[in-house]
Amino acid sequence: MGEHTVTSFDEELEHIDRLIRDMGDLAGSMLAGSTRALLTSDNALAQRVVSDDAIMDAKQRELDDASVTLIAKRQPMAQDLRAVVGAIRMAADLERVGDLAKNIAKRVGAVGQTSTPRNLSHSIDTMATLVLEQVNKVIGHYVARDAEALKTLRADDEKIDIQYTAVFRELLTYMMEDPRNITACTHLLFCAKNLERIGDHVTNIAENAYYVMTGTLLPANRPKVDETAAMSAA
Amino acid sequence: MGEHTVTSFDEELEHIDRLIRDMGDLAGSMLAGSTRALLTSDNALAQRVVSDDAIMDAKQRELDDASVTLIAKRQPMAQDLRAVVGAIRMAADLERVGDLAKNIAKRVGAVGQTSTPRNLSHSIDTMATLVLEQVNKVIGHYVARDAEALKTLRADDEKIDIQYTAVFRELLTYMMEDPRNITACTHLLFCAKNLERIGDHVTNIAENAYYVMTGTLLPANRPKVDETAAMSAA
Repeated sequence: MGEHTVTSFDEELEHIDRLIRDMGDLAGSMLAGSTRALLTSDNALAQRVVSDDAIMDAKQRELDDASVTLIAKRQPMAQDLRAVVGAIRMAADLERVGDLAKNIAKRVGAVGQTSTPRNLSHSIDTMATLVLEQVNKVIGHYVARDAEALKTLRADDEKIDIQYTAVFRELLTYMMEDPRNITACTHLLFCAKNLERIGDHVTNIAENAYYVMTGTLLPANRPKVDETAAMSAA
Repeated sequence: MGEHTVTSFDEELEHIDRLIRDMGDLAGSMLAGSTRALLTSDNALAQRVVSDDAIMDAKQRELDDASVTLIAKRQPMAQDLRAVVGAIRMAADLERVGDLAKNIAKRVGAVGQTSTPRNLSHSIDTMATLVLEQVNKVIGHYVARDAEALKTLRADDEKIDIQYTAVFRELLTYMMEDPRNITACTHLLFCAKNLERIGDHVTNIAENAYYVMTGTLLPANRPKVDETAAMSAA
């Protein structure tokens, strides 16, 4: 768009909205790519995820710039201002999801040197699938402006936490069984933790999206428990 | 302050600024408390850090509300708008520092069940001291409006990363030496990772503070490398 083009307020809001959707799609594909790379030791795919993160960062900068420019130029009132500030926050969380997927991708090489037990792969795959569903749903509900669905979605984060606790326990067990597993399992621990954190970012995104749509906050957070923080090996 | 009190624009900006300083002080004390609790197995202190996180969250909400209200009511132009948006971002990073300190505190119980080797305690202590210095400095430079000092500070994050790599390596070694160390070392790995991430948040805070003060971005990020992502045990 040339700088002399006159854009309407709605077009500017639509631009910001489209960036959120782009970032959401990219977050989903980075997450899917990084976990597939991890479970199939696909170094080329891992490298692609790492490169994609630069695109994510550029989109976030574009959104931030567009938002601040819009506020300064248009001086929007309550509802529209809320939408713009909400978009800035959603973008920050989506960018973090990209970072976390990149971090998983960067561990593919270190993990791939040893063979992951089949059961463990299955547990991690289950967890990754849950997280990916959440990422895709939160963007879907945002695009569909479905505030009610966002409430349910937030509650689903609990399933991810339960699966994380199971994976954490399994990893400790494998490390104790054979010290040769320790390096790979340590990287897998961080991968599982990253997936759990992506779940938390989805929760934040859901809360911000709800606020953008309704102007009210979701009822108080469910108490957030990472049970593994106090966990010893069985 | 009663709702009928008439406040000036400068007073409102000052209120936001004071909240940033409060959050910075709290982040520093939570970090100091959590690492001291970790290294001395002090469960009562750990519990205090966990409680402090609720105060941090409340301060962030207060800052967010004050910022959005200010933008809506005062419709600030470029420089002031930048200060407000920058404050929202700084607050988000400070809140994350509090979360990470809380997560360290929550692991004190699980780690305390075993005795940490003296060398390892020393390495973690060194790392924690570096991180705490960074947290205190970034808030100090912000309060003093010292943009030049913020540049140097960002470069210092490298020292933290080097120390993190050393701690990571030590922890893998202890786990391999004796499987009974695995549970405690796993929690310590996450603690070290949290400290490293706090360093990253300090970098973000420095960048936002610089932008708030000068209106320009700091030169491109130093390439961010977590060397441990690709690391195998020696």
